[in-house]
Amino acid sequence: MLGNCIEEVRKKMPLVHNITNYVTVNDVANILLACGGSPIMSDEPEDVEDITSICGGLNINIGTLNQRSVTAMKIAGKRAAQLGHAILLDPVGAGASKMRTNTAMELMKEIPFTAIRGNISEIKTLALGDGTTKGVDADIADAVTQENLDSAITFVKEFAKKTGSIIAVTGAIDLIGDDKICYVIRNGRKEMGRITGTGCQLSGMMTAFLTANRKNCLEAAAAAVCAMGLAGEIAWNRMQEGDGNSTYRNKIIDAIYHMDGTTLEEGAKYEMR
Amino acid sequence: MLGNCIEEVRKKMPLVHNITNYVTVNDVANILLACGGSPIMSDEPEDVEDITSICGGLNINIGTLNQRSVTAMKIAGKRAAQLGHAILLDPVGAGASKMRTNTAMELMKEIPFTAIRGNISEIKTLALGDGTTKGVDADIADAVTQENLDSAITFVKEFAKKTGSIIAVTGAIDLIGDDKICYVIRNGRKEMGRITGTGCQLSGMMTAFLTANRKNCLEAAAAAVCAMGLAGEIAWNRMQEGDGNSTYRNKIIDAIYHMDGTTLEEGAKYEMR
Amino acid sequence: MLGNCIEEVRKKMPLVHNITNYVTVNDVANILLACGGSPIMSDEPEDVEDITSICGGLNINIGTLNQRSVTAMKIAGKRAAQLGHAILLDPVGAGASKMRTNTAMELMKEIPFTAIRGNISEIKTLALGDGTTKGVDADIADAVTQENLDSAITFVKEFAKKTGSIIAVTGAIDLIGDDKICYVIRNGRKEMGRITGTGCQLSGMMTAFLTANRKNCLEAAAAAVCAMGLAGEIAWNRMQEGDGNSTYRNKIIDAIYHMDGTTLEEGAKYEMR
Repeated sequence: MLGNCIEEVRKKMPLVHNITNYVTVNDVANILLACGGSPIMSDEPEDVEDITSICGGLNINIGTLNQRSVTAMKIAGKRAAQLGHAILLDPVGAGASKMRTNTAMELMKEIPFTAIRGNISEIKTLALGDGTTKGVDADIADAVTQENLDSAITFVKEFAKKTGSIIAVTGAIDLIGDDKICYVIRNGRKEMGRITGTGCQLSGMMTAFLTANRKNCLEAAAAAVCAMGLAGEIAWNRMQEGDGNSTYRNKIIDAIYHMDGTTLEEGAKYEMR
Repeated sequence: MLGNCIEEVRKKMPLVHNITNYVTVNDVANILLACGGSPIMSDEPEDVEDITSICGGLNINIGTLNQRSVTAMKIAGKRAAQLGHAILLDPVGAGASKMRTNTAMELMKEIPFTAIRGNISEIKTLALGDGTTKGVDADIADAVTQENLDSAITFVKEFAKKTGSIIAVTGAIDLIGDDKICYVIRNGRKEMGRITGTGCQLSGMMTAFLTANRKNCLEAAAAAVCAMGLAGEIAWNRMQEGDGNSTYRNKIIDAIYHMDGTTLEEGAKYEMR
Repeated sequence: MLGNCIEEVRKKMPLVHNITNYVTVNDVANILLACGGSPIMSDEPEDVEDITSICGGLNINIGTLNQRSVTAMKIAGKRAAQLGHAILLDPVGAGASKMRTNTAMELMKEIPFTAIRGNISEIKTLALGDGTTKGVDADIADAVTQENLDSAITFVKEFAKKTGSIIAVTGAIDLIGDDKICYVIRNGRKEMGRITGTGCQLSGMMTAFLTANRKNCLEAAAAAVCAMGLAGEIAWNRMQEGDGNSTYRNKIIDAIYHMDGTTLEEGAKYEMR
């Protein structure tokens, strides 16, 4: 029951440590509060071990990485792993620069991520990055479509098996899978791509869902993706003439604020493969 | 007259230097503009001395501190003190990490803060932090309630006396006191806690109020707290079906934008103890 | 045709690399998306060369500069210049601190900026900063008004000639000129000054306009200024009772989101001198 996953977040109010980019950090904090979680931000190496220790989950986003924050990500990640926390990686821009690709690869080697969430281009970069991903279908296209859905699902399951992490590839069609099961999700609207940070917001919220649902993490990750897409649909229906992407951003967070388990359960559009 | 304090801000348009966290910095800037002040942000050690010199007030918030910004806080704080500026400390997360607690304690030793604003947990940490606060009631609870109000007021007055700063403890009931007088304020709504950064915004705005009302700082600090809470009430009355925390954030800043002295005077709910 | 300039942005969807301040960065990203561009942020010296290489334009804003980001600005600027990208400088706070003035002057020496956009105070600082600007009218006032318009236009053209950059001085009256032609623009509303970052947003959007209109950069810069001012007018007409600067901010970005070439062409208020 996906709907139950958001109810657990509202009940447990998980504290999530975010090491995230400064572009979308305010929206990440507000969507975490909207879904029932609680955000803390810290990216100073000297500070992160203490901060992550009082949290239940850790969200690492490399969107505006720098040498200091990468050091902090590694320290926090190791500490969070020792404590058994839910840990998520959002490899923003992997493939766009050597530093981002290398940082994401290093983090994956050093930290046992509960989930990795990105677009198809970023996830492909991680899968192919070290040149030894022979089992992975390198022909996977640049977007998940109805036509390449089968091979994309295989790709997700194989990469999940290789990494031991839940893999969430988000786009027009979202795929969230472990090595056995893949959720194919069709919530959301294309206009969400005209808002900065809907992906970052989803990563923050997904970390809260994982933290509050540790015994069914795959379902929790899928529930977060459905919730974000459904919020995009609900918010779109509340748009008035003249409203644009800035107002849409506010209304999406507002829709999460009001979303209960029943709404999520009934609005989620997915199949399991 | 609390109402007069906001009128002074609008008249004097104080320039406030903010060394604040990157999570809520945009909202801090917009609420400073909304109340009639003007914000400047700078956290580079080489830059802050010049920047703070052209301002009238300095707002130091340790929400996403790092080693560079802590250095900048100390340089700026000393310069602002030399110039007789209003200086405020928002010890975000004091008690949550050693670095935050230690940084806040060091800043308090080196800089003569006009006011220190935080939640009860943060302020208690500062009061008890160095182990020599025998005069302070260590039994003060984790929230200010009607039941423990007397001991909380005593705590605020004693900590104000010890530090020489105005102490502002904000929560469901707000206490703003110096060594002699404590304002007990009951404006605001609990839903404000579901927005990131209402505390940071208040700290920014309070710095503007202190800067524009240097001869009655205690009243100015109380006026800022009443203004923030009253804005939360006014904004809540303007919420429409489906609006959530993101829209509420905007409407609170909007309410400050329109608040005049009469509105504040009539809407402020406080007693002096 | 100014209207055509925004249509080119929507058609070409230019990717813009922003090294900008953390106060207004989210709004810069959203307005870039609103006008049809696409934003990337990176300020780490190790990362910026790769990131700027995949972009078409570079927006450098020194609003919250630090030693690391200044290094990144120089690296990115040189690489962008090699690649023939559109490069814009927003010298936020030049004149307010030695570091800001010196950084802006150094960047101007090392990087061939396509355009420099600031308020009259910042631009004057750059023009007078190195003490050798004998050709420049040092008597230019602190605001461009109907009374000093002629001398202000001369100032803009001479500084444009000296720098080889388009000079954009924005305020109540905007002047956008090269060495031969100066647009005098009268769009916008004074209430835009009560929102943080309308200047930063304009700089981001102008970079997208320049990137998508490389063969008529002066017109593109003027079109961006008209678009921003016109958005301020459209948004103001959509304000409801009780709305303030926070909502106004959202509505301005929304107005850009919906602006097409015809709207811009018809709403632009300018003369060429």
